[in-house]
Amino acid sequence: MNSKMVQINNPTLEKQSDDHFHHLGITKSAIDIPKMYGDVKFVCMGGSMRRMRNYAETFAKELGIIISKNLSTTDRYVMYKTGQVLWVNHGIGVPSLSVIIVELIKLLYYAKAQNVTAIRMGTSGGVGTAPGTVILRPAIFDAEVYQQLHKVALQLKVPVEIGKTFSTDDFYEGQARLDGAFCEYTEQQKLAFFNRLHSLGVRNIEMETLCFASMFNRGNIKAAVVCVTLLDRLKDDQVLLEHGDLIEFEMRVFKVVSMYIKQQLKLC
Amino acid sequence: MNSKMVQINNPTLEKQSDDHFHHLGITKSAIDIPKMYGDVKFVCMGGSMRRMRNYAETFAKELGIIISKNLSTTDRYVMYKTGQVLWVNHGIGVPSLSVIIVELIKLLYYAKAQNVTAIRMGTSGGVGTAPGTVILRPAIFDAEVYQQLHKVALQLKVPVEIGKTFSTDDFYEGQARLDGAFCEYTEQQKLAFFNRLHSLGVRNIEMETLCFASMFNRGNIKAAVVCVTLLDRLKDDQVLLEHGDLIEFEMRVFKVVSMYIKQQLKLC
Repeated sequence: MNSKMVQINNPTLEKQSDDHFHHLGITKSAIDIPKMYGDVKFVCMGGSMRRMRNYAETFAKELGIIISKNLSTTDRYVMYKTGQVLWVNHGIGVPSLSVIIVELIKLLYYAKAQNVTAIRMGTSGGVGTAPGTVILRPAIFDAEVYQQLHKVALQLKVPVEIGKTFSTDDFYEGQARLDGAFCEYTEQQKLAFFNRLHSLGVRNIEMETLCFASMFNRGNIKAAVVCVTLLDRLKDDQVLLEHGDLIEFEMRVFKVVSMYIKQQLKLC
Repeated sequence: MNSKMVQINNPTLEKQSDDHFHHLGITKSAIDIPKMYGDVKFVCMGGSMRRMRNYAETFAKELGIIISKNLSTTDRYVMYKTGQVLWVNHGIGVPSLSVIIVELIKLLYYAKAQNVTAIRMGTSGGVGTAPGTVILRPAIFDAEVYQQLHKVALQLKVPVEIGKTFSTDDFYEGQARLDGAFCEYTEQQKLAFFNRLHSLGVRNIEMETLCFASMFNRGNIKAAVVCVTLLDRLKDDQVLLEHGDLIEFEMRVFKVVSMYIKQQLKLC
């Protein structure tokens, strides 16, 4: 097996005459998957449909290349293609993310795509970091990719830290927020929890990274996670950014990742 | 405490001067929540934005009443209001669902809404049931609500069963599918698993019901789940319905729930 190929592990699937991707709304036999997706080198993902479309449009515009129509035919996810880069939203939380990653790994496997890198471009809560800081997540992710991303962020003078990410299955109680409908702990307990996370090296909290890392790893796809923090959870629970600041923070992730991709694909 | 009021359990929230709902994009102080939402009696939810908008539009049209604009200002969720009924999508999986339920419970609490019933209108895989069967889920749900829903379904001659629902955190391996990117079990193991589920009274599988029941229960909101099956998992893994059949199946859920709501609100 070529180590650069996308891998699946499912003997039953090989015997199946056709394959319908329920959440992308794509049927294998209806399109030429290798022709359409065989050149993919980067899969960029984030929670929000609007943000991923905006990233894809900006990337295409900057390079003067064409952006595809939305290639997902369901309303569950969107997928755009700009040259060798796919832009796909994953919704909120691990179950929503896992569904679309399975379909993307199968798509790239059928496409015979090689040497693919997946990058999550997310928003998150910071832990002792100023809002607007870009957090890079190492661990089982590809060390080379995140070191290159770090270098790019420093070049672009984007506030950046390398840190651990705490992935949860909930936004409110699961992240010790005091502003949910239910809260059976005190502010002191919350702060003690966050101070402990910070002392363990955690720099941000979100809801997808753990699964993103492990599933792409299973598919032999390099993975990195680049999240911007929207608030510092040592200080606040509510995200009260002005709209302009929110957009500027979201674009910091884009600046770093798009520059990195352009360098890797020798487009700049 | 009035037993019919929506309840929260968060002393800290009461001290907070304002409240921003991050995923609905609503700020408490910016609108008159009791005036806008105080009359809500039903919260209808389902995964897909398109489906919930379609249900809301059809409901408004049938009754000749006005449908609101999308009341969520983010692209994470949609929320429509038709008279005393809210229509909200919840995305895929428990984490995505839990985020929006917390914000809905807070909204209805601030609104001083009373005697609210939440109904999930979902799609699911069947276990030994013909595709298109509407499955009603009892258990910790409100017995009166589901018995009334059952009566309505029988009156409308919609294929209906009362059964247990198996809620999972994944669509592929977590539901023993053979068509994912990864599959470390055999077809025989899959069938043994489904036969065991069937013998335990399970009639469908989906990804949200468990959390839907427990969280609305915490908020003192009656809950019911009405899901249509799109396939029988004892026979198939892939959903290969014609588009027309899919729409017709989705509308079976709507027929039952909308008739029930109309009866309860004495609109018919």
